[in-house]
Amino acid sequence: MADLNSGQLLEKMRADAPLVQCITNYVAMNIAANVLLAAGASPAMIHAEQESGEFARVVSALTINIGTLSPDWIAGMKAAATGANEAGKPWVLDPVAHFATSYRARAALEMLDLKPTILRGNASEILAFSGATSGKGVDAGDSVEAAEATANRLAAERGMVVAITGAIDFVTDGTRTARIGGGSALMPKVTALGCSLTCLVGAFAGISPADPFAATVAALSLFGVAGERAEKLAAGPGTFAAHFLDQLAAVTPADLDNARIEA
Amino acid sequence: MADLNSGQLLEKMRADAPLVQCITNYVAMNIAANVLLAAGASPAMIHAEQESGEFARVVSALTINIGTLSPDWIAGMKAAATGANEAGKPWVLDPVAHFATSYRARAALEMLDLKPTILRGNASEILAFSGATSGKGVDAGDSVEAAEATANRLAAERGMVVAITGAIDFVTDGTRTARIGGGSALMPKVTALGCSLTCLVGAFAGISPADPFAATVAALSLFGVAGERAEKLAAGPGTFAAHFLDQLAAVTPADLDNARIEA
Amino acid sequence: MADLNSGQLLEKMRADAPLVQCITNYVAMNIAANVLLAAGASPAMIHAEQESGEFARVVSALTINIGTLSPDWIAGMKAAATGANEAGKPWVLDPVAHFATSYRARAALEMLDLKPTILRGNASEILAFSGATSGKGVDAGDSVEAAEATANRLAAERGMVVAITGAIDFVTDGTRTARIGGGSALMPKVTALGCSLTCLVGAFAGISPADPFAATVAALSLFGVAGERAEKLAAGPGTFAAHFLDQLAAVTPADLDNARIEA
Repeated sequence: MADLNSGQLLEKMRADAPLVQCITNYVAMNIAANVLLAAGASPAMIHAEQESGEFARVVSALTINIGTLSPDWIAGMKAAATGANEAGKPWVLDPVAHFATSYRARAALEMLDLKPTILRGNASEILAFSGATSGKGVDAGDSVEAAEATANRLAAERGMVVAITGAIDFVTDGTRTARIGGGSALMPKVTALGCSLTCLVGAFAGISPADPFAATVAALSLFGVAGERAEKLAAGPGTFAAHFLDQLAAVTPADLDNARIEA
Repeated sequence: MADLNSGQLLEKMRADAPLVQCITNYVAMNIAANVLLAAGASPAMIHAEQESGEFARVVSALTINIGTLSPDWIAGMKAAATGANEAGKPWVLDPVAHFATSYRARAALEMLDLKPTILRGNASEILAFSGATSGKGVDAGDSVEAAEATANRLAAERGMVVAITGAIDFVTDGTRTARIGGGSALMPKVTALGCSLTCLVGAFAGISPADPFAATVAALSLFGVAGERAEKLAAGPGTFAAHFLDQLAAVTPADLDNARIEA
Repeated sequence: MADLNSGQLLEKMRADAPLVQCITNYVAMNIAANVLLAAGASPAMIHAEQESGEFARVVSALTINIGTLSPDWIAGMKAAATGANEAGKPWVLDPVAHFATSYRARAALEMLDLKPTILRGNASEILAFSGATSGKGVDAGDSVEAAEATANRLAAERGMVVAITGAIDFVTDGTRTARIGGGSALMPKVTALGCSLTCLVGAFAGISPADPFAATVAALSLFGVAGERAEKLAAGPGTFAAHFLDQLAAVTPADLDNARIEA
């Protein structure tokens, strides 16, 4: 499947409707599930240690986001990642604001050591893995460019795909790289769209586990095209969110040929 | 009150604005509360063991949904169901994806043994109580028809109302049955509408505890009519959700005379 | 900064984009974050005891809402309030439905003893601190006027600002008072807008910690003007919510000169 382009992957994703286990934060739960449903995947939010590992063995992909962390949730995340690894399922890590507190920094590193297939974050989150970031709170204070060297190094050292999302996204597997444009300036004004994108990356990885790089590029392209189209219909961040979900459902495989990708 | 039709029950529900304690999942919290407010009820999300049982004694109805389960929440659910039972308050069980893991299956059975007034689920969730389902994740893989026999048996054996929701809903109390149409193909594309419906069933049961069958039919009819009307205004799942809430508020008691019900 | 009017405070708030730590309930998480982003602030939902106090030391303001309470969350709230106090950061308390159960009543009093800078509630919630309320569930059963004497007394005794929100809001610091109109009858039909307003009060307090009274008036004025404008565009509570977020972003500092304030 390594040769499928983004449009072909979207077509396959909608045909398969992959089941994606999303362990995400309280802010993102609803919008992330709606993003997956609109795009054509099947979300399931199952997080507790008592069942997360068992469930991770039967899904198409797992995504883990550390946004609203607590000890019980960390236990559930570890059980799920372990289950996914044992069953050979791809999983995506979203290390939300791991630079904000020492508790969060430690949790992000522990999750990274559980070998995610794909790491997705904003520039400050990726950069913080090399120790230097100007991020505050949960928003990116750094440019995508500033984090590219760290992304390339992390990808090569740890054998994973790294995606930095921002005005122009950057994706690398340590060898190949891509930049994806599109989107809208309204997107950072709607909470948890980045978290939702992490889940969508999981959906594409679920149908193309053999090529997580192509899966990541396809997910980011769908987000970019839908965001660009939604902006034309929106009068602000509230109406944008509704139109964005409509567009995730409306975008066709052929539309992804117009995604602004630079390989 | 056993003779009131759906329109009369809607009128009474809006006049009473019943207080409904909703113990629901993280994905559904916001949309479920908005569904109740739009329809005319008063939601309160109170789940912790330390207060859920005390609160269940003073509400009009309780609803319990096992979507995002953990040990603390199970304890809170049990305390609430026990409180509702002791105070003679109706309560509704929504056994989300209880076939997905062994932890979830056990929790659903334990809740069922606490004698809900009404059980609402999709076809796969109802069917799974008889051991056989093709459900995966949280979506129904089975047809409503396939689960009707199980619903009738559960209703008769356990003395409760059972509702299977899908393209055409089925409601049974073991003796009476009804089928409710309407709705929209966009509804499964918006997350947690089924969970929200469970809460709305609680609102109607809260004003008509003497006839949970009629209450369930009324709630499903309101959902069906509002969904049909919202679809005409929507361009996709995102705008549908907003219009659906508008229509829950706009539907009149007389409009429910046009609900597609087959007794 | 004590002399800045609401328009000037809005301008400064958007320029600074204050980082606000919101410990809020599961229902409100998403809409509260969207309200802050639309208005121009930067929300961060960090609640666990393991990190909430450390994070409270670096934010511009903290807000605490007891809507969906449990023991772990109370511990996180206390750690955060203590951290904010030690670092001299303003914080806002929202004692959701603290009259509903004994557990909740005790938690609200314990939080009040941690000396919030600002207390915001509906009339029933403020009145309940004097022992008498007709509130049921989470909605206000009392009029704003009925709670004004309690608000004035609490403000004077505890040296904090108290805001009662309703059809006409009332703000007092024990000496100064203001009434703010505007808004829309659709606002109580959208869940968690009051909780979101608490977070917005935090955003304004974060840029004007020296004058929490003026900050509170500015936040309430922005809500009132945006609500009034959104109502003209809405067909019900669902479309209102989307337009309201749009208007929070669209309202200009000059528009706040038309806020219906009575000093």
